[in-house]
Amino acid sequence: MTTTPTLNERANRLADHMMMTAAQLRITTHTIGGARVIDCGIEADGGLQAGLALARVCVAGQAELTLAPGEAAGVPCPLVQIYTDTPVIACLASQYAGWQISVGKFSGMGSGPMRAAYGKEPLFDHIPGREHAPVAVGILETESLPDAAVIDYLADKLKLSPAKLTFLVAPASSIAGNLQVVARSLETALHKLHELKFDLKQVISGFGSAPLPPVATDVVTAIGRTNDAILYGGRVVLWVKADDAQLTELGPKVPSCASKNHGAPFADVLKACQYDFYKIDPALFSPAEVVFHNLKSGKCHAFGRLEPAVLRQSFLG
Amino acid sequence: MTTTPTLNERANRLADHMMMTAAQLRITTHTIGGARVIDCGIEADGGLQAGLALARVCVAGQAELTLAPGEAAGVPCPLVQIYTDTPVIACLASQYAGWQISVGKFSGMGSGPMRAAYGKEPLFDHIPGREHAPVAVGILETESLPDAAVIDYLADKLKLSPAKLTFLVAPASSIAGNLQVVARSLETALHKLHELKFDLKQVISGFGSAPLPPVATDVVTAIGRTNDAILYGGRVVLWVKADDAQLTELGPKVPSCASKNHGAPFADVLKACQYDFYKIDPALFSPAEVVFHNLKSGKCHAFGRLEPAVLRQSFLG
Amino acid sequence: MTTTPTLNERANRLADHMMMTAAQLRITTHTIGGARVIDCGIEADGGLQAGLALARVCVAGQAELTLAPGEAAGVPCPLVQIYTDTPVIACLASQYAGWQISVGKFSGMGSGPMRAAYGKEPLFDHIPGREHAPVAVGILETESLPDAAVIDYLADKLKLSPAKLTFLVAPASSIAGNLQVVARSLETALHKLHELKFDLKQVISGFGSAPLPPVATDVVTAIGRTNDAILYGGRVVLWVKADDAQLTELGPKVPSCASKNHGAPFADVLKACQYDFYKIDPALFSPAEVVFHNLKSGKCHAFGRLEPAVLRQSFLG
Repeated sequence: MTTTPTLNERANRLADHMMMTAAQLRITTHTIGGARVIDCGIEADGGLQAGLALARVCVAGQAELTLAPGEAAGVPCPLVQIYTDTPVIACLASQYAGWQISVGKFSGMGSGPMRAAYGKEPLFDHIPGREHAPVAVGILETESLPDAAVIDYLADKLKLSPAKLTFLVAPASSIAGNLQVVARSLETALHKLHELKFDLKQVISGFGSAPLPPVATDVVTAIGRTNDAILYGGRVVLWVKADDAQLTELGPKVPSCASKNHGAPFADVLKACQYDFYKIDPALFSPAEVVFHNLKSGKCHAFGRLEPAVLRQSFLG
Repeated sequence: MTTTPTLNERANRLADHMMMTAAQLRITTHTIGGARVIDCGIEADGGLQAGLALARVCVAGQAELTLAPGEAAGVPCPLVQIYTDTPVIACLASQYAGWQISVGKFSGMGSGPMRAAYGKEPLFDHIPGREHAPVAVGILETESLPDAAVIDYLADKLKLSPAKLTFLVAPASSIAGNLQVVARSLETALHKLHELKFDLKQVISGFGSAPLPPVATDVVTAIGRTNDAILYGGRVVLWVKADDAQLTELGPKVPSCASKNHGAPFADVLKACQYDFYKIDPALFSPAEVVFHNLKSGKCHAFGRLEPAVLRQSFLG
Repeated sequence: MTTTPTLNERANRLADHMMMTAAQLRITTHTIGGARVIDCGIEADGGLQAGLALARVCVAGQAELTLAPGEAAGVPCPLVQIYTDTPVIACLASQYAGWQISVGKFSGMGSGPMRAAYGKEPLFDHIPGREHAPVAVGILETESLPDAAVIDYLADKLKLSPAKLTFLVAPASSIAGNLQVVARSLETALHKLHELKFDLKQVISGFGSAPLPPVATDVVTAIGRTNDAILYGGRVVLWVKADDAQLTELGPKVPSCASKNHGAPFADVLKACQYDFYKIDPALFSPAEVVFHNLKSGKCHAFGRLEPAVLRQSFLG
């Protein structure tokens, strides 16, 4: 697959456009260590539009993202909808939060196309997308602005001068940060498939939605609810080219209900694991429902179920 | 909050664009008393696109408005969806139908950004938005075109020459007029909060939807159904910064079910009040469901309920 | 109704735009017999975006087409939504698949604005839309690319040189072809009304949705599912100017449940009719639900019902 311009250039243009409408989006732009840092929810208020813009940068413009009317556990709730014909590039090469960045006191989950420019995650040995790009754009899920040391670190890793770098920052406990995490319904399904050794070249197109949870004020609740939105409210449809036997065998393992940790709000699971992510069953990270439209056989395979009671506990409890 | 350009200039550009696509929108443009008057549903047929355009002008382009598939009382029905990160400006400074205009035989409810240029409603003492603008744009919900005397009256009030004025006109009993009224789900929630003395500076973002009712042929039925769409089918989510105690105390009073007039189709309520709006319990004017996402505490508070049986009676009875 | 530019010119511009984003849409362009042929799903993969683009060309840009989150028989399923204020022009003069093209071994259903340029279908004696256009654009639902003989045949019929012709091709058994057929919920309702001798001048605006079925690998299943999506999952709202007595009398005959063939998956009906389309009750071809908003009386008339069990059998059986 050729991507001309690069994912990072596409994202950079979207970030430029965000700057031009900064007042409307309630975002602010800083120059830190020579790099452009766009605050979408740390000191800035941000909002729904900033969240959608952030999510679009995060997929490097390679997926359509909108809000739709819906409900969660019977309560009115916007749905975050995504669809794309380049799901692996949009969601795994770009959107996946695969780069844990810790520099001094700074800690943030890195996502967006800078990961494709960095290219050091083992995931890129299994998917296309690594690229040389003249600029790099990353999303940092974090509670504090990066300082010059963080920028230096990232510039070094990305082999680009800070002037070529843009970082969009927001915590999950902000309107925009909350929204961009919940935009990951499709990404979560793809990553789970990857974990299950499904060859992602078989995935042609994807469509997903998840309910937008109330914005939390602390990180644990924010991580809890955004995960719950996907684990218990996420619905994904994948167009794949596969053998039906493979889907019949693999399918039941794909949705979140395949996990032994399924059934409790994510924050409770996290607490039970002493807040150690690595103790959580990795099989949990997947949408509530995953449907395969198999282009090879014409068969449709549907797995999983919504869990409105858990969503109610998580969002309203 | 700075709004550069002014709300009225933004709306004027949208109105210019409507003129350029007038044939598609089935709208017609008149020059009356020197002002531009765009007929979206009096003599002109108008339509769904004209209704969306009218609604966008009415919020001065400060909210996203779309149609989505849905149902009312089990019957297929488009939903009118709105969301915005400037809810008070978009919905109260601009969209709210707060200016009753009566000149000679002419009578119409005035809404849109001209209200912010006029700025005489007491509401503007409690919200931001008053502005000096080089042009003014208003929406008139009326059954007849304004004449030159109406334009003179409005030019005088707005302190602008008629050549600087644009009025978009449609009765609620037209496709476009019906749609633009039902686009007010979020506005209705905000106005109710204002009535309850909730400080609207606390409202950060908003999302709403309501079912699009069948277009009526008489004003009473039109007013009845468009109100019912919101009172019994409207669903609103508000992102606020408040104390939970305030929301717990205030919340149950917000949705329409808090009113003693709740439960009957609005046209019946109006009839029981001898068609005197001022006898209707003001507490009735609110969406069926209002959900608060409290950014200060992270808590979600949901109030109200849909009333499909009333919608059925109103839309299909 | 004046259409300036012509439907075919509008569609041609949309096709030009598709070419400019061909890599993103996963479509390929061929020159065959001097004409432009855009492959959206025969050898090309196509996708959801190609399907939406194809559907937009097919209505000559005269309707709004989007995807929305939804479900079919309880299983997550995108909905294909359409709405327009020129329903007869968009759906019958352009979108309707009314031109069966058989040249040598080539066979395809022709739709799109080329039909309005050709104008030989008897349907055009009852609706507006015939046009002289400097270019012609058609959609061919077919499993194989047309050859030069097909292009010659079409150029002759359209009285235009091949250099002025564009054909977009996809089988119903491709992602894009499947989507563009399911975009016909509103068209199907209008055609059924025409069959019932309803004067289509009475139809002012229209809104429809239908669930996107799994893509089939063979033509019979593809035709079966795309029809089922509309017959058992299609929901249409029409704004009409009619007498209520006419709607009360005619209405029950409009949705698919009025047909004696209603209730079984379409592929089974087709098989029972020995795969002879002309043995199928024509009354079957209509959405599951059709709702009339009568602008003349203000009354709403709703007919038909969803059949989730049949959809389940068709999509998942």
